[in-house]
Amino acid sequence: MAHDALKEAVWQANLDIVAAGLVELTWGNVSGVDREAGIMVIKPSGVAYDRLIAEDMVVLDLETGAVLGHGLRPSSDTPTHRYLYQQFEDIEGIVHTHSSHAVSWAQAGCEIPCLGTTHADHFYGTIPVTRPMQAEEIHEAYEYNTGVVIVERFREDGVDPVQIPGVLVAGHGPFAWGTTVQKAVENAIVLESVARMAMHTYLLNPSATPIDQVLLDKHFLRKHGPGAYYGQQATKEQT
Amino acid sequence: MAHDALKEAVWQANLDIVAAGLVELTWGNVSGVDREAGIMVIKPSGVAYDRLIAEDMVVLDLETGAVLGHGLRPSSDTPTHRYLYQQFEDIEGIVHTHSSHAVSWAQAGCEIPCLGTTHADHFYGTIPVTRPMQAEEIHEAYEYNTGVVIVERFREDGVDPVQIPGVLVAGHGPFAWGTTVQKAVENAIVLESVARMAMHTYLLNPSATPIDQVLLDKHFLRKHGPGAYYGQQATKEQT
Amino acid sequence: MAHDALKEAVWQANLDIVAAGLVELTWGNVSGVDREAGIMVIKPSGVAYDRLIAEDMVVLDLETGAVLGHGLRPSSDTPTHRYLYQQFEDIEGIVHTHSSHAVSWAQAGCEIPCLGTTHADHFYGTIPVTRPMQAEEIHEAYEYNTGVVIVERFREDGVDPVQIPGVLVAGHGPFAWGTTVQKAVENAIVLESVARMAMHTYLLNPSATPIDQVLLDKHFLRKHGPGAYYGQQATKEQT
Amino acid sequence: MAHDALKEAVWQANLDIVAAGLVELTWGNVSGVDREAGIMVIKPSGVAYDRLIAEDMVVLDLETGAVLGHGLRPSSDTPTHRYLYQQFEDIEGIVHTHSSHAVSWAQAGCEIPCLGTTHADHFYGTIPVTRPMQAEEIHEAYEYNTGVVIVERFREDGVDPVQIPGVLVAGHGPFAWGTTVQKAVENAIVLESVARMAMHTYLLNPSATPIDQVLLDKHFLRKHGPGAYYGQQATKEQT
Repeated sequence: MAHDALKEAVWQANLDIVAAGLVELTWGNVSGVDREAGIMVIKPSGVAYDRLIAEDMVVLDLETGAVLGHGLRPSSDTPTHRYLYQQFEDIEGIVHTHSSHAVSWAQAGCEIPCLGTTHADHFYGTIPVTRPMQAEEIHEAYEYNTGVVIVERFREDGVDPVQIPGVLVAGHGPFAWGTTVQKAVENAIVLESVARMAMHTYLLNPSATPIDQVLLDKHFLRKHGPGAYYGQQATKEQT
Repeated sequence: MAHDALKEAVWQANLDIVAAGLVELTWGNVSGVDREAGIMVIKPSGVAYDRLIAEDMVVLDLETGAVLGHGLRPSSDTPTHRYLYQQFEDIEGIVHTHSSHAVSWAQAGCEIPCLGTTHADHFYGTIPVTRPMQAEEIHEAYEYNTGVVIVERFREDGVDPVQIPGVLVAGHGPFAWGTTVQKAVENAIVLESVARMAMHTYLLNPSATPIDQVLLDKHFLRKHGPGAYYGQQATKEQT
Repeated sequence: MAHDALKEAVWQANLDIVAAGLVELTWGNVSGVDREAGIMVIKPSGVAYDRLIAEDMVVLDLETGAVLGHGLRPSSDTPTHRYLYQQFEDIEGIVHTHSSHAVSWAQAGCEIPCLGTTHADHFYGTIPVTRPMQAEEIHEAYEYNTGVVIVERFREDGVDPVQIPGVLVAGHGPFAWGTTVQKAVENAIVLESVARMAMHTYLLNPSATPIDQVLLDKHFLRKHGPGAYYGQQATKEQT
Repeated sequence: MAHDALKEAVWQANLDIVAAGLVELTWGNVSGVDREAGIMVIKPSGVAYDRLIAEDMVVLDLETGAVLGHGLRPSSDTPTHRYLYQQFEDIEGIVHTHSSHAVSWAQAGCEIPCLGTTHADHFYGTIPVTRPMQAEEIHEAYEYNTGVVIVERFREDGVDPVQIPGVLVAGHGPFAWGTTVQKAVENAIVLESVARMAMHTYLLNPSATPIDQVLLDKHFLRKHGPGAYYGQQATKEQT
């Protein structure tokens, strides 16, 4: 993908998260990656969404983090995005927001169990929460270390970031990602929606339990992987 | 009704559930039936609402489930809709959404008692929740079996689906229906609204109780059945 | 006020409650009264808001309840409105909605204490809830008796309906009113807002207490009555 | 800043708080100050937002409180604003709203602890709540004394109003401020958002705790003060 096309896609995705109601003020950023070209593209820091143009998107060298081209500063969360791209090799888009219900779960320090099929259609199980960061991780290279605690959380349980395309950073908020920039946006929308529904579920029934593994398998796998039969690109006949 | 008119009505209803705020992403589908012609019409699978045109609606043979005409795949929930039409002979429209509060009740595994007249105006008593589906029902013909557990739930208590035009599928979400496609949409809107109000009612007063049967009768029957006197088509004088 | 001007004002007020987010589907109605002419004007029954025109408003004889002029049926809640106008002589507009949070309080069967100055600016104390209606009151002249239990609730505590311009009908929802049609709409908006804030207040602090009488006096009386100094029509100098 | 420019900025800010969803009816007002010229500008009392024009903004002498120029009455909350400007010498804009969740915290009489980084990015610690006002403070110069209890609350704990740019007045609602009118609006938006998230956090986890001081320092100081590196006006290189 040419730089300009990626900048356009990332710019559009930044507008999409606003339109989806995930963003207040300038709290949010989307990035995309072109692994072949070795670059990533991200929203500039602290620019109001209604003044944002595609040209403003910042291009960086994925390996060194150096800004290529014009002089706008990239989002202050860039080191988190870059570390995630480096460690999660199958993702090509990342979305960070402070969407209201996902932040509430992150502030509560609680992971979101899979309580229903809306969740299961997009996240193959519990959405994890990171451990709190330690003083030295916060003092030095804070945004980079935010990436580190996310990746640590996935590695320690052997979770596949393509199957669980999002996380809650404790005391902070959600990061979501996907195999394309558009799918990252979709997963960020789902994460907020699932967070709201799960909160209400527990208010209605504090003893609510996750759905059975077989139902989780059914929903996730009918939309993802070789046996998928949802949408218009399917390869199997429908009953 | 000609196929084209039914496709138009079903297309419009699919847009109506979006406008009513019941839908995120592509989570929702509406169908309609022409019992005389032996066909049903439903939204195609996984198509974005803003690109949907009436022509995209998929026509199926109600008895065999075979797609008639063009090649778009019907919603993956089609077997559920078809089974409901076959078993509930008086309904002509069905709406499935993942509307937020109704899903929360479904995830909580709780039925919604009739706590007030808003509910009583449209649902003649408790809105039921299905039992969880068993592994074999999920593995094989999952969407068909979703219909089976819904119908089972109504049959076991002798509930009339015209008087209770909706249900919560446990761990999943709401299905609503009606004697026309438009009424199915209206009942889906009411179900979400009633779900939100009932949640808040219990937050305010965990001991809240259903309204008396006489008030339930009054409200449901002043809008439905031979003695109705609400709206402009009434046959009785108003006091 | 000429009939046409009152019909226009009532029609506008019916649109205003939709714009204010108090209405779903056709659940709501506004009326106004011209006491000198002995008439009241109310929304027709069950007509969709987006098709409503001023001409559709129904004019009735305030004393007999007879419809004057064209043939649309008045709202089924007309007998409630008419009884309130007859008993509460200082009100000239009434609004009935099923606004979400006010309904939740009505379903919970709980009155809304005055927890803050937003409430105190418009309602001079607790917003009462009626007793549940009895079977015979529901069977016969239900809508009329809805008015009866409202008035009974105000009379038994000697509450002035101008100082407390609204009520919750148990298991049903809110009625609000005012000395003009516009003020009735404003009070309906405030009632919903106050209901939402009060619910959240108790979720945050189950031991929250009403504000002191002196603060209630200050806020209500700086906007209402002879010493008012809020807005542009005041008669006193501001400090 | 010329009077006209300040009137324009204050008028725009009054519209901005409506657009941000912080205002119902006329419940809200924004003011700005020109300390060199010794004047403050504030919204007139009780004027509907959709009829407001820049020219309507009221100019007052900051020291005496006398209205300069045309005859519209200033907001009834003017004495609160004026006292805050006199006591908090580094602020140049003030916003008062009855935004729903902030009011709920004020009615609950609870301060809002810093539960996450959204809060920490804008408020350097707990958002305080005032003590209830006493009868004599309410009877005489109520709005002035509202300012007094706010300032008292900051002084008693040695809180810097630039670092904590907002407060909850017990039983009433939020005041927010900033070093510019625009920043005051931004802080009012953040205060409402943080209030909603904090409420949901406690509903999810009643034992949720504030974030560590080191994380609070990191977030507040990366956006404020000499070491800031957020946005496009930074003076340091980004890692």
